[in-house]
Amino acid sequence: MLVPTIVVLSSLLSSAFAGPHARLKHPKSRPPKTGLIEVLSASSSSNVAFSPVSVAPKTNIFISLTNDEAASVISFLHNQTELNLTAAADAGAWDNAIEVVDLVQPNKTDALEYLDNDGPIPARYAVARIAFGATEEPYLQDFIVGPLPISNASTYESLDWATTSGSAKIRNYNADDDLLTQWNFDVTATVADIVLDLLNGTATGSDDDDFDIWGIDPLWMEEIDGEQRVILWNTYWRFPSDEDAVFDGETLLPQGLFFKSDITGRDSSKWKVLGWLYGDIFYSTTEEFRNAWKSPDFIKYELNLPGEWIGSDQTGTHFPADNIAPPVAVQPNGQRFSVDEEQKYVEWMDFSFYITFTRDTGLRLFDIKYKGERIIYELGLQEAIAHYAGNDPVQSGTAYMDTFYGFGPYAFELVPGYDCPTYSHFLNATFHAAELSVTHRNNICLFESDPGYLMQRHSSSNYLALTKNIVFTLRSVSTVGNYDYSFDYVFALDGSVETIVRASGYIQSAYYAKNNDYGYQVHDALSGSMHDHVLNWKVDMDVLGTNNTLVKHKVAPAVVKYPWANKTRSTMRLERERIESEDDAKLSWAQNGADMFLVENSDKLNKYGEPKGFKIAPSRGGAGMYLTIQDSPNLLKSQGFAKHALYVTKQKDTEVRSSHANNDYDPGNPIIDFEKFFNSESLNQTDIVLWVNLGMHHVPHTGDMPNTVFTTAQSAFIISPHNYLLNDASRATRQMVRIDYNASGVQLVKEFGGKMASGVVNVTAQQPNFWNYEGDVAVRKFPYDPLHPFNDTESIV
Amino acid sequence: MLVPTIVVLSSLLSSAFAGPHARLKHPKSRPPKTGLIEVLSASSSSNVAFSPVSVAPKTNIFISLTNDEAASVISFLHNQTELNLTAAADAGAWDNAIEVVDLVQPNKTDALEYLDNDGPIPARYAVARIAFGATEEPYLQDFIVGPLPISNASTYESLDWATTSGSAKIRNYNADDDLLTQWNFDVTATVADIVLDLLNGTATGSDDDDFDIWGIDPLWMEEIDGEQRVILWNTYWRFPSDEDAVFDGETLLPQGLFFKSDITGRDSSKWKVLGWLYGDIFYSTTEEFRNAWKSPDFIKYELNLPGEWIGSDQTGTHFPADNIAPPVAVQPNGQRFSVDEEQKYVEWMDFSFYITFTRDTGLRLFDIKYKGERIIYELGLQEAIAHYAGNDPVQSGTAYMDTFYGFGPYAFELVPGYDCPTYSHFLNATFHAAELSVTHRNNICLFESDPGYLMQRHSSSNYLALTKNIVFTLRSVSTVGNYDYSFDYVFALDGSVETIVRASGYIQSAYYAKNNDYGYQVHDALSGSMHDHVLNWKVDMDVLGTNNTLVKHKVAPAVVKYPWANKTRSTMRLERERIESEDDAKLSWAQNGADMFLVENSDKLNKYGEPKGFKIAPSRGGAGMYLTIQDSPNLLKSQGFAKHALYVTKQKDTEVRSSHANNDYDPGNPIIDFEKFFNSESLNQTDIVLWVNLGMHHVPHTGDMPNTVFTTAQSAFIISPHNYLLNDASRATRQMVRIDYNASGVQLVKEFGGKMASGVVNVTAQQPNFWNYEGDVAVRKFPYDPLHPFNDTESIV
Repeated sequence: MLVPTIVVLSSLLSSAFAGPHARLKHPKSRPPKTGLIEVLSASSSSNVAFSPVSVAPKTNIFISLTNDEAASVISFLHNQTELNLTAAADAGAWDNAIEVVDLVQPNKTDALEYLDNDGPIPARYAVARIAFGATEEPYLQDFIVGPLPISNASTYESLDWATTSGSAKIRNYNADDDLLTQWNFDVTATVADIVLDLLNGTATGSDDDDFDIWGIDPLWMEEIDGEQRVILWNTYWRFPSDEDAVFDGETLLPQGLFFKSDITGRDSSKWKVLGWLYGDIFYSTTEEFRNAWKSPDFIKYELNLPGEWIGSDQTGTHFPADNIAPPVAVQPNGQRFSVDEEQKYVEWMDFSFYITFTRDTGLRLFDIKYKGERIIYELGLQEAIAHYAGNDPVQSGTAYMDTFYGFGPYAFELVPGYDCPTYSHFLNATFHAAELSVTHRNNICLFESDPGYLMQRHSSSNYLALTKNIVFTLRSVSTVGNYDYSFDYVFALDGSVETIVRASGYIQSAYYAKNNDYGYQVHDALSGSMHDHVLNWKVDMDVLGTNNTLVKHKVAPAVVKYPWANKTRSTMRLERERIESEDDAKLSWAQNGADMFLVENSDKLNKYGEPKGFKIAPSRGGAGMYLTIQDSPNLLKSQGFAKHALYVTKQKDTEVRSSHANNDYDPGNPIIDFEKFFNSESLNQTDIVLWVNLGMHHVPHTGDMPNTVFTTAQSAFIISPHNYLLNDASRATRQMVRIDYNASGVQLVKEFGGKMASGVVNVTAQQPNFWNYEGDVAVRKFPYDPLHPFNDTESIV
Repeated sequence: MLVPTIVVLSSLLSSAFAGPHARLKHPKSRPPKTGLIEVLSASSSSNVAFSPVSVAPKTNIFISLTNDEAASVISFLHNQTELNLTAAADAGAWDNAIEVVDLVQPNKTDALEYLDNDGPIPARYAVARIAFGATEEPYLQDFIVGPLPISNASTYESLDWATTSGSAKIRNYNADDDLLTQWNFDVTATVADIVLDLLNGTATGSDDDDFDIWGIDPLWMEEIDGEQRVILWNTYWRFPSDEDAVFDGETLLPQGLFFKSDITGRDSSKWKVLGWLYGDIFYSTTEEFRNAWKSPDFIKYELNLPGEWIGSDQTGTHFPADNIAPPVAVQPNGQRFSVDEEQKYVEWMDFSFYITFTRDTGLRLFDIKYKGERIIYELGLQEAIAHYAGNDPVQSGTAYMDTFYGFGPYAFELVPGYDCPTYSHFLNATFHAAELSVTHRNNICLFESDPGYLMQRHSSSNYLALTKNIVFTLRSVSTVGNYDYSFDYVFALDGSVETIVRASGYIQSAYYAKNNDYGYQVHDALSGSMHDHVLNWKVDMDVLGTNNTLVKHKVAPAVVKYPWANKTRSTMRLERERIESEDDAKLSWAQNGADMFLVENSDKLNKYGEPKGFKIAPSRGGAGMYLTIQDSPNLLKSQGFAKHALYVTKQKDTEVRSSHANNDYDPGNPIIDFEKFFNSESLNQTDIVLWVNLGMHHVPHTGDMPNTVFTTAQSAFIISPHNYLLNDASRATRQMVRIDYNASGVQLVKEFGGKMASGVVNVTAQQPNFWNYEGDVAVRKFPYDPLHPFNDTESIV
């Protein structure tokens, strides 16, 4: 857009810039040439000295359980004889054992009393996830244990109030892992000759096995002869071998042979093979399969074999210029944010927040404040679905809910110089599972960076004004199996907070035979199995208090008759709509970006009468955010949060999470069914929570071989002030310059105390030492000896 | 997504990572600890030494006219007496004068013959845009002049074949700029007392005027008494004043008083005032307006006055940490791309391309090759619309088409250390207008950078593999009036090319009275006038030749009965659809990103049978790409390219551009009406062109005060290989590391010759000197003296 009054050269030249009807600006008086750089010490300059070490203003009430807390909870539970617990290290399938202990996030009402009103610090409680195996009908159950520290006042009870099912129990239809492994080998033994012929390998349980056997996730329930049966479809995956054995390419090596098992009950002698599938032909018995295989017209498909192609090392002709080191960021003048390492509290410019880390969802942020006011109470991942499709039952039947595996356990140490700048500030994080406390060293990084474009610029005939865009990033990466999910929370000087997820790593792929409706062929006998990623975030915004409303401002076409026009005009208008009930609270981003979603406090108007708020909008990606399959037979009642782009619900202390790590055990009877959060409650000026999905439809092509790359596999949303302040917040930074000039040259360089990086940097000394990569520290919790916390675990560090 | 076989710690710890049915991977043999960093000199290493200076393999046939060429064209035209030209410097409204000369881009057929088949170099032709003022019906017309250099063989003719109207002529209904300026002052004089009362200022043409007067763009045609009349609505804008006069904030100072003029014809004594508007009340005569103003119930609205609020300097409390310099990127080991400065040819890794620069659209890229094969013949901006709406006729009537003003003239010098890294490679660019050749110094920058996240990563129980994401950016910024458009073309190691536009600068705003259906109130008497930005790009892709097809691959829900299932299953499928006719070629990005658009060569299959292609997808933003108003009364037949997200047409040498810089003169009778490109032609395996829109719906709020910021005002699309190669192209880089480890620690660090940045960098010495900002060099072209090219223009450099 342009106002034709701006001309940079003198009026003599102005005719060069536009057509005959350009309207020229009157020449303006220009500042005198001073020949000096004017460095302002802004009058409003703060006198507070900066320290990179901060002290949290309040105790971090969200912080993960300490090792001692976890140990005391575990010990307490072992003392409850009715639980009949066995130490996790000794427990078998028929024992009861503690799987996970973690913090029960304090109720928001209590937390706000503490944070805002000098109320008492909320009592700490733990959740203990216990697997009950000592029964014909094994199950898992969550218990709340506390208050902590454990004392005579401490009790435990089923954590039913945090569920939608009314019970924190869920059945485990697949408790006998050892039996199942043996079953798979036994079934394979009945067709060992066929497997050898078709797949050229063996799976017997020996060390030189060629195949790994696994299949659908979650398991299916199927009615057979009027009875609900537990069904598992399995397939054969080849192990990488030879020189490429180090590479984690097993998910590129599906072999195309499938078998269906009825694994109902705990007596594997009653389990049954219900059929075989090869080349898109189903054989309902092993005998039928064998007969077909023997017949002369049996069609054999190509082998999908490992090789150099599954490796991710450098390959192909490299570029001469690539012998030279590329540009790198340096931080010669020191860290510009502060961290309270003990309290996991961070301050950067006008932002502050607390960090925590959970087994299920990894890194989480609480009490994000901006200019002293809370804007987000809670920000963190809830669940990640990867839903596949294919002509074979294993791809068709796969719909991972990754919190089952957990984002905490797989959030490994980061590599400076690659994962994060070498000058980053690294933090550790700990989770507690199977009666071990495992500390990931340096698995969270915090750093400032210049994303390579400005925050603000403007030039005119008189001046240029330029403001740097320095952002602050909090990052962790969880490698949940074949995929590496990188999570960024990026804070910017304009008050925006961007949440980014990127995916790299190996795809899970399909055997190629007759799968071309479900993916591209990406190698000799391989199909890039199509799948949807949906990652759900909880975004509990509090804009100037908890009484907020989600409003939708639509840029809408309109036909309007104006007083100054004889005829109607086709134009557009801003239409304001309030989402006032949970009945209207399942939302999508509009076609062509026509809708803006704002969280506003309708009672807090700025001086111009506009409600103060924040906008939430997609910012990167665009390849999809919610599930294509709206009624998945795999996910059943566990996909309620993944059917729209975003949702808004009334905040309740009983509706803390949109999913549950145990839903995967029985997705038709989930512990948390997000759909049940919707019960027509008013969302008008009340405490609301947004549930926002990121993701992508991923149809892997040859460019995903061997690994998907982050550049085209990313998705993000951004929260930014909207009529919240009276101007652009980035005006507060010193990292800007104004250059006044005229035809005689530069007249004034105006700086604002924002120094450019200076000094001499030994870049060589900043090179990372990759030999420092360490791995995790594990502390055994039961039996626990605080004086020897590494009891029995040092060897596995 | 996860395959549950990956466990990073030893099997002892494995139970910590998942629930009871986790299926554990067989332990793998691990590489021996070598204690050495293995640096590979890849067997496929190229022996070609790298030089940052390249020699273009072919002459840049797209390069802008040289100053000599422009001068000779101008001289040639002045010799054509029937044109009756006056030197631009002397020309008035009643003269004929040359406005612009530029290159006529060679026909693609000729260009490919030269580039690919050693055909003759295409003859060079210029386009000359001439304003014919010496007539009662003034007009503009484009002529093609050539071949160049000018010789006896050179001729000129109307450039009709590059139009859809059949004529390169367009009427100019507003040729008398001087008369109009005087008209505005004369009209104002009739109500000077009212203006002083309502707006507290004057507009008389004197140096101390308070107001600038301008209005709608383009002009309207309105039928009055059966005759087409030329209509202009004007309003008053206040000049910034006092200490904030340097700031370009006039577009923040609309005053809320409007008048409508009939300016038909060239005799301003016949022009008429058709009414006034104030406070949303229309007065059809000046007398009516005066009477109302005199009446006691006349409502006066608040003044919109300048002040510190329009300045963009540092304001507000700054942060203690901001006294420290932020991180900065350095390039200690030298430039890794090569440039042929004379031919404007660039090579980076596996990419090469030619640059040109035009008056209308600024920077353009031609013949983008990837791994030696052309993938994009032409990539560049076509047009940028900014369409406003409002309760007043000026906002409602404003729909800028910015090529009218031109992106070339306003693509000013960039500031190292702010606009681009200090280590960037800068290029100059020249345009020719009003018989001047103006060279922007350092207005294009090229640089490598690390965008702050990896290209690839994967970790397993055995290893980490990490690849850097080093990108190469080509950038220019055009400040077209109040807005600064930043254009990036970003090349990445995975073969992707991203086109990004960002907007900063001042908004054009509206007076606040009764405008709240069209924008937020953003200051005392100011509304942030809502508007749509639509920027159209030509993307002429050539995938392995010119026979290409656009295909749409849909991720579609499906209900399927599989041979292995008793019941149908709700699932999804990849549906492949070909866009085979221009009848189906107006396209939008699907809701939830469900469609992938691919340009493929259906006859060139990869070894797995998939057609080789490139995907095109939105990558940033998401706030809209096409016009909300589908039938704008302002744009009429000139908005054809802006009604959908993307279009595909058959390539024709006569359909070079989707818009024309002169369409703005008469948008109802445009020289190029993009809709006319659509005439049912086959798009099946033929040379196709994509026309892709970026943009946003911009409803400015207080955060746009004083300037819109780039962070939330950006939009991009990315083109990336899709089944084009057999694997991820980034595997060719040396900038990767593999770390093999086990419970005993790191066993092997494998590098690939990709050095980390090294050496000692004097960061202080890299600080930019803002006093070096220079501005432009202008060379007068007529009368032209090659020995004294700065003839009469030195003073304005």
